Amino acid sequence: MVHVLDVAIAVTRTNDEAAAARTHPQWENMVGPFGGITAATVASAVLSHPDVQGEIVAITVNFAAPIAPGEWAIVAEPVRTNRTSQHWAVTARQGADVVVTATAVTGVDRDTWGDTEAVMPEVGAPDTYAETRIPFPLKWLENYRMRFIAGEIPMPPAPLADDADTMFWLRHAEERAWDAPALIAASDAFYPRVFRRRGPAVRASTITLTTYLHASAGELAAAGSHLLLRAGASRYGRGLFEQRGEIWSEAGALLATTYQLVYFSEPRIDA
Amino acid sequence: MVHVLDVAIAVTRTNDEAAAARTHPQWENMVGPFGGITAATVASAVLSHPDVQGEIVAITVNFAAPIAPGEWAIVAEPVRTNRTSQHWAVTARQGADVVVTATAVTGVDRDTWGDTEAVMPEVGAPDTYAETRIPFPLKWLENYRMRFIAGEIPMPPAPLADDADTMFWLRHAEERAWDAPALIAASDAFYPRVFRRRGPAVRASTITLTTYLHASAGELAAAGSHLLLRAGASRYGRGLFEQRGEIWSEAGALLATTYQLVYFSEPRIDA
Repeated sequence: MVHVLDVAIAVTRTNDEAAAARTHPQWENMVGPFGGITAATVASAVLSHPDVQGEIVAITVNFAAPIAPGEWAIVAEPVRTNRTSQHWAVTARQGADVVVTATAVTGVDRDTWGDTEAVMPEVGAPDTYAETRIPFPLKWLENYRMRFIAGEIPMPPAPLADDADTMFWLRHAEERAWDAPALIAASDAFYPRVFRRRGPAVRASTITLTTYLHASAGELAAAGSHLLLRAGASRYGRGLFEQRGEIWSEAGALLATTYQLVYFSEPRIDA
Repeated sequence: MVHVLDVAIAVTRTNDEAAAARTHPQWENMVGPFGGITAATVASAVLSHPDVQGEIVAITVNFAAPIAPGEWAIVAEPVRTNRTSQHWAVTARQGADVVVTATAVTGVDRDTWGDTEAVMPEVGAPDTYAETRIPFPLKWLENYRMRFIAGEIPMPPAPLADDADTMFWLRHAEERAWDAPALIAASDAFYPRVFRRRGPAVRASTITLTTYLHASAGELAAAGSHLLLRAGASRYGRGLFEQRGEIWSEAGALLATTYQLVYFSEPRIDA
């Protein structure tokens, strides 16, 4: 049995640069697919390119338009190959329309000094928290299990929160080891920060997502089932806000940091 | 007199999508131009495009190869125009070689609820700190004035620092109002975080830079001379590290947040 994440991110190479992808009904979000699976599919197109060198260390995915159910075409080009890094430019279309742009950098693993300055939050083990069900009928949520530590969605009549801080343990619903595409998908698994401040009736969608991967493939594969996800917001205004997030292994390694700028629009209140 | 920043970022449109840029000797860095001026020039190519809609709200610039002194060519394409946002794909070449890739999002100013959750550090006014001279003969440094509050480079024989945290007031050496290109340039004005931990002999260069602009053009123009810049690092390893930064106005507005993944290489110690 192929894991539902791998089914969804599978691409068929149509030539060296182009790859055909297909949306998967199990990853549907409010409008179009879950952004994380779109980003992971872009990563998959890069990693399946015959000329790829190294592992993905940075990726920026811009969600230009909703992807309709069905096929979409990803052109990922290695525009520059250096000794230790390779630069990728990606454009994805559905028919004639650009739906996604992206850039990625792959890097060759080098053995150097290392340290972590970010501090992992002090939390209990995953099994000390109850499984949390986010009360939206979104298919992609079924592919994960979440155990919230703090910062759930304030569902009415609960009062709005004063901050957007959220922490939860995340694992795949059906077990699967972590790797770059899975981690990139997980980096978009936060519900929109603005829900904490304005409630879940606000419309929100990610415009651009940047994720840095700080762990090698080997470290990722050994990370175990549960990852600790943490996110907050910096500033909201002009119908936009920034989310900043961190992804930690249970053993305390910072696996990824992730940022996104999100569009939001509040419902009109009829008098 | 045109400001040295505006001279450097000026582009000449060769057709709707392509613009000719030219490196400026006053912005030279260790190898090639200061990354901030390169990113600002990319922004300038977007903003001078005849079809641009709105202001830059997010930009990711990937430094694929050093830019040699002289001309370089920027192709910035508005690949998708939505009601409130526009997506840009950018490739810059010198001769046949790709030197920069980028994506940007421009957004139409919308009047919505807003708030800031990030907390401005409590620091004194700019004139309560002495002007700091970074002891490297880099031309671009002459275009700024910095007053460090904390986190200077540990120049030998000073001991290495335990963390990479840095805060300083920054202004243009020659007065100039802040706008999107100037803010994007400033978002790369941090010396490499790894200098704090391993000393200034380490070689470091930005691979990819992402900056989110949280202030409208009007708010930026009213920000005054000095901005507060703050940066830290999350994790170092595999010859890479992430820098995370914030840029605040003196009045306490979060103007931008900025992230970069940086290559580093330590000098060999001969026994």
